[in-house]
Amino acid sequence: MDEYRMIDTLAINNDTKIIFLVIDGLGGLPEMGQKGTELDVASTPNLDRIAAESICGLLDPVLPGVTPGSGPAHFALFGYDPISCNIGRGLLSAAGVAFPLTERDVAARVNFATVDGDGNVLDRRAGRIDNATNERLCTLMGREIKLENGLEFFMQCEKEHRAVIVIRGEGLSDEVSDTDPQMVGVPPCIPEALDPAAERTATAAREIVEQTAHLLKAEKRANMILLRGFAKYRAFQTMEERFKLRSLAVASYPMYQGIARLLGMDIEEGTTDLASEFRAVADRYGDYDFFYLHVKTTDSRGEDGDFEAKTAVIEEVDRLVPILLDLQPDVLVVTADHSTPAVLASHSWHPVPVSLRSRYCRPDAVDRYGETAFATGGIGRMPTVRLMGLALANALRLAKYGA
Amino acid sequence: MDEYRMIDTLAINNDTKIIFLVIDGLGGLPEMGQKGTELDVASTPNLDRIAAESICGLLDPVLPGVTPGSGPAHFALFGYDPISCNIGRGLLSAAGVAFPLTERDVAARVNFATVDGDGNVLDRRAGRIDNATNERLCTLMGREIKLENGLEFFMQCEKEHRAVIVIRGEGLSDEVSDTDPQMVGVPPCIPEALDPAAERTATAAREIVEQTAHLLKAEKRANMILLRGFAKYRAFQTMEERFKLRSLAVASYPMYQGIARLLGMDIEEGTTDLASEFRAVADRYGDYDFFYLHVKTTDSRGEDGDFEAKTAVIEEVDRLVPILLDLQPDVLVVTADHSTPAVLASHSWHPVPVSLRSRYCRPDAVDRYGETAFATGGIGRMPTVRLMGLALANALRLAKYGA
Repeated sequence: MDEYRMIDTLAINNDTKIIFLVIDGLGGLPEMGQKGTELDVASTPNLDRIAAESICGLLDPVLPGVTPGSGPAHFALFGYDPISCNIGRGLLSAAGVAFPLTERDVAARVNFATVDGDGNVLDRRAGRIDNATNERLCTLMGREIKLENGLEFFMQCEKEHRAVIVIRGEGLSDEVSDTDPQMVGVPPCIPEALDPAAERTATAAREIVEQTAHLLKAEKRANMILLRGFAKYRAFQTMEERFKLRSLAVASYPMYQGIARLLGMDIEEGTTDLASEFRAVADRYGDYDFFYLHVKTTDSRGEDGDFEAKTAVIEEVDRLVPILLDLQPDVLVVTADHSTPAVLASHSWHPVPVSLRSRYCRPDAVDRYGETAFATGGIGRMPTVRLMGLALANALRLAKYGA
Repeated sequence: MDEYRMIDTLAINNDTKIIFLVIDGLGGLPEMGQKGTELDVASTPNLDRIAAESICGLLDPVLPGVTPGSGPAHFALFGYDPISCNIGRGLLSAAGVAFPLTERDVAARVNFATVDGDGNVLDRRAGRIDNATNERLCTLMGREIKLENGLEFFMQCEKEHRAVIVIRGEGLSDEVSDTDPQMVGVPPCIPEALDPAAERTATAAREIVEQTAHLLKAEKRANMILLRGFAKYRAFQTMEERFKLRSLAVASYPMYQGIARLLGMDIEEGTTDLASEFRAVADRYGDYDFFYLHVKTTDSRGEDGDFEAKTAVIEEVDRLVPILLDLQPDVLVVTADHSTPAVLASHSWHPVPVSLRSRYCRPDAVDRYGETAFATGGIGRMPTVRLMGLALANALRLAKYGA
């Protein structure tokens, strides 16, 4: 038994409720020559009150120094080992568009791209074609592309220039190299088997690329595809199977919906902005035990490198937090999947702040929401994957271990 | 090699002495609407002085969120992995009454109980019969009960309504279900094999229950037994074998004596109250390297849900602590096996305070004994199983690792 799975054996059911407010990329860094991260300097009276009533600390999403993608960072948040549960981008994308995956499927992420007459890549995003064009091309390719050896081919639009392909059949493997050269002026790479067992899949990928080049040759911009992140389907035990939690995900972005879907959560559809996400938790509060509420724009503004704008999003979240407090959840966790400091304009390895508020949480002396204050919190510093056990305990959902 | 066992390979002998003052269930929680745990609010001038001279922190007995029983919590304190070393209640009880266990034994915990004419449980504790009645019934059953298949049967009184049975023979297994239904108004459960290899043991358990019903049918109160926690004997390497520590346990309660006995500690007999326990350490100070001094009543008052009474016990312990300080031990550890907050009236998952005082301990800024202050201590937060290595190091009992 993996040690982190001990909590599965202790999980019991009751009528308590747990909310995870996941503020994507929340962790930050001070601007050069300044003090205080985005979160430290933001005006957050509601979060400060939560900090005072919570046990606080810092979480390492994977390991100190390791910068996680969104996949492993979220797996860890939900109590799944981010290392053994790591999956490729293709599977995250396919789950994100709700493609009905089977055990025989290998998925890959698609970028529509523009190539010149010599086959060299001119634009890796095909000028960010619109969704309608994307849909039209996916329908065409899904209908026309035929694979040898009894394999089936599926294609589904994601958004703008992004789509997903799925190859279905027996004996497939995801040990196939990407075709995206990650630069312009060169041709796409040929998909190669990275393992002898992947020859069949690599051959299918080459067939797909060749037929696509033929099918799209009249397109002005999207006349080629680039494939990356081949990933074979794998099934995960659901949150309900592991923790006896009927779970709802409120996340407006497909990839986060996809992760939640892989773990058996129901997905709240139709939220459009932050306020509607918070209200959705309140509206569905009677129907679930666990709520995953995902805020994307902190990460987006961090990726933009915009310290001020990220701070402003944090303040917007702070103004919405009372909607959750009014529900009086048994356990309210506020945290992040990973850090996205504006000064790095990317995901980073820095540990993320976490607060856990419950009737039984033994509050510490921290009364200000931010990484600096949280370094002295009662949770100390621990791996993110441990958080779910702590949340379940505070919801009185774990039985005693041993006599 | 389990990582935590590295310290075994480094242990060396010298004449330093280590005292572990284990204040059972010490960790607590604030009362509703208040600040400060039982330990935070207790007046503890001697412990505060110890905190100022110690390195302090918080320990997780098993994992964050996991509420341990006394068994795993104590194993961790003594440097034994609480997960791989977890044992059933029967074995803890049998060791507690010093039953001479062999490799062929399976033990189970007994509650004498009262059943009505239809065989339904009326009282799961038989009105808490006195020790003399318990002794009389154990002697009767031990003499009269005969098992088929060449198995032997033993029975020993524990206290009040509690006793232990031992089944001895070849090919026994502890994968047998409890008979205690954990409620009244229903009959005891039939002991069932949870694994095909346990059929022989389950059959013996059924024979024991049937013969008991016959033997005790004239008893007014203790006319049935309930069995739980079937556990096969397993041998542990002793503290002396692992750490070169000749060890004495000063613990008035049988179960804690039992854990110590399983790890090869000598047991100090005849202590009756807290003061006599502290004096026993002083009296035997010349004879051992390691002293385990167990204070039970903090846990008992926590289980009672009595915040004030638990605080009072802590203050009583504080008044006795100078007895240990006067011995000038090389290492004095003050900690707990687990938390028992009065507001929960049960064991809990909360990390426990720990202080370690030695000439070489690099004290931190903490000068007040309590969970809130300890959250900023120099030990930080770590698993309890790591504590023994730290204690040995501070006693200069660990050799350098590697060249």
